[in-house]
Amino acid sequence: MIQTIVETLNQEISLLQYGQHPPELYEPIRYIMSLGGKRLRPVLTLLGSYLFTDQWQSFTQPAIAVEVFHNFTLMHDDIMDQAPLRRGKPTVHQKWNANVAILSGDVMMVCAYDLMLEAGKDKLPVVMKKFNRCAADVCEGQQLDMNFEQLATVSEEAYIHMIQLKTAVLLGFSLELGSLLADAPARQSDLLYRMGVAIGTGFQLKDDLLDVFGEQAKFGKQVGGDIIANKKTFLLIKALELATGPVADRLQHWLTSRNFDAPEKVAAVTEIYQYLQVKQIAEARMNEFFKEGLQCLQEVDVPNARKQPLKEFIENLIERES
Amino acid sequence: MIQTIVETLNQEISLLQYGQHPPELYEPIRYIMSLGGKRLRPVLTLLGSYLFTDQWQSFTQPAIAVEVFHNFTLMHDDIMDQAPLRRGKPTVHQKWNANVAILSGDVMMVCAYDLMLEAGKDKLPVVMKKFNRCAADVCEGQQLDMNFEQLATVSEEAYIHMIQLKTAVLLGFSLELGSLLADAPARQSDLLYRMGVAIGTGFQLKDDLLDVFGEQAKFGKQVGGDIIANKKTFLLIKALELATGPVADRLQHWLTSRNFDAPEKVAAVTEIYQYLQVKQIAEARMNEFFKEGLQCLQEVDVPNARKQPLKEFIENLIERES
Repeated sequence: MIQTIVETLNQEISLLQYGQHPPELYEPIRYIMSLGGKRLRPVLTLLGSYLFTDQWQSFTQPAIAVEVFHNFTLMHDDIMDQAPLRRGKPTVHQKWNANVAILSGDVMMVCAYDLMLEAGKDKLPVVMKKFNRCAADVCEGQQLDMNFEQLATVSEEAYIHMIQLKTAVLLGFSLELGSLLADAPARQSDLLYRMGVAIGTGFQLKDDLLDVFGEQAKFGKQVGGDIIANKKTFLLIKALELATGPVADRLQHWLTSRNFDAPEKVAAVTEIYQYLQVKQIAEARMNEFFKEGLQCLQEVDVPNARKQPLKEFIENLIERES
Repeated sequence: MIQTIVETLNQEISLLQYGQHPPELYEPIRYIMSLGGKRLRPVLTLLGSYLFTDQWQSFTQPAIAVEVFHNFTLMHDDIMDQAPLRRGKPTVHQKWNANVAILSGDVMMVCAYDLMLEAGKDKLPVVMKKFNRCAADVCEGQQLDMNFEQLATVSEEAYIHMIQLKTAVLLGFSLELGSLLADAPARQSDLLYRMGVAIGTGFQLKDDLLDVFGEQAKFGKQVGGDIIANKKTFLLIKALELATGPVADRLQHWLTSRNFDAPEKVAAVTEIYQYLQVKQIAEARMNEFFKEGLQCLQEVDVPNARKQPLKEFIENLIERES
């Protein structure tokens, strides 16, 4: 079923007409949407709808709205983060320029809202209200993430709050949207929102872990990239909190070094992480979130057979190694 | 009546809660919205609704949605145009930075959509559809405007098309929105859209004229600013089209000079414009658009007393000297 859903989504995405003229405005949208990815968010929407109805095929447009919105945030985040690559290809502001990326992103958000109209008149007010709340949360999360770069220390709870806004709430909304489209009762769609937020938080912690402890052969990006960039991940935040004496000095040394050998820095900081057991702490926190998310799914009041595709999909993502 | 409307709008705008945290995200919204301006677009929405109902007070939130959207486009345009000032005050990307202006603008668009939800369930699908079309048009217009900067020549019709997308359609939508909120028949709201686009096109031509031929004492900006910046206004486009022989050479000389005395350039190019009579051509074109717009209003099928406030408001703007 997952494969059918992903193929249907990719087929519909390839047929989307965003607009034609001027090409500088619409080519970047086609470009970033064609870079692929797992289509995680619209799959969650359709699996969320399947909990309550067989008619998931009728909800592909609002599901794709979430994917378009997600890619809009990537286009603008990449400008702000000065990222050169996205899924191994040049980012839009690199391939064109920053102005094109700003304006294409803007019109992409409009496209997302336009696709969301397909939710239909009756559901539109509640769907739009929740979509707007989620979209504002995502912007707040990105601003907090940028603010954190300027801070010496960030608390664990502040970090969790930031990643929940920046990435997890959109997974929560994706699942919730599916249930709203399928006319599920409010209590059920609330459970799905909470499920998505919890699972999404766990996914981000998993990303933090894979960046350091993933196997290079399976991991798509450079192992240790976050360490090289001093990115304030859960691991670094926890290490800064726990390190004392000479270990704290060694960590500060690597964080403040301007000229360093990248593999040497990665090895040294990884060793500090291991010494402080932050891997185990992160894994424990991640597993709590996964458990909370799966618990929400268990509480959803539909037959187990309906939950099976979503459960399997999530479990596969929990086990992923890249 | 206009004064009551503007005061009501400014009062409601001052009470808007966009969001609080993080402040870098929401302060710029409060800042740009507080810079004032004529509140032209929401006034048009409320006057458009008054054609069909006395209940204009119940439509202030969707009317303000248009004002928030307009200010979002200003925030992003100012980044792209590297503009230092907006209404005499530092632009958001100057006062904060470009990243803040990108992200605040994004969340501002979300705020606009959220205010538009107050159009109510029954009207939401049509209002959103038209708002999305208009928002995409505005982005297309901005991209065309940037593209024109790179071109040696632009045709008059391409220029008119660009300013219609970039500025006039939003005036068209503002008026149309008022009529949609007041449950006007489709033929009437179509007339109001066409009226707004025509009037808006005339306003932009008037801006082009005032920049060169306005009186410094009344004009808010530097007279001749467009000439100094080689901005492709209607006047320059027409002059490039009409100039031949030594006049064309003189115009090219000023367009390509790197080191020039600003008042000297303004005087010389203004003289070329006068010689080519592009002022008269622009005024004739502008007046055609104003005539077309007022003709649309005449055709709207409501008593003349209902049209009076809108008619007076537009006529005052047509006569303005700044």
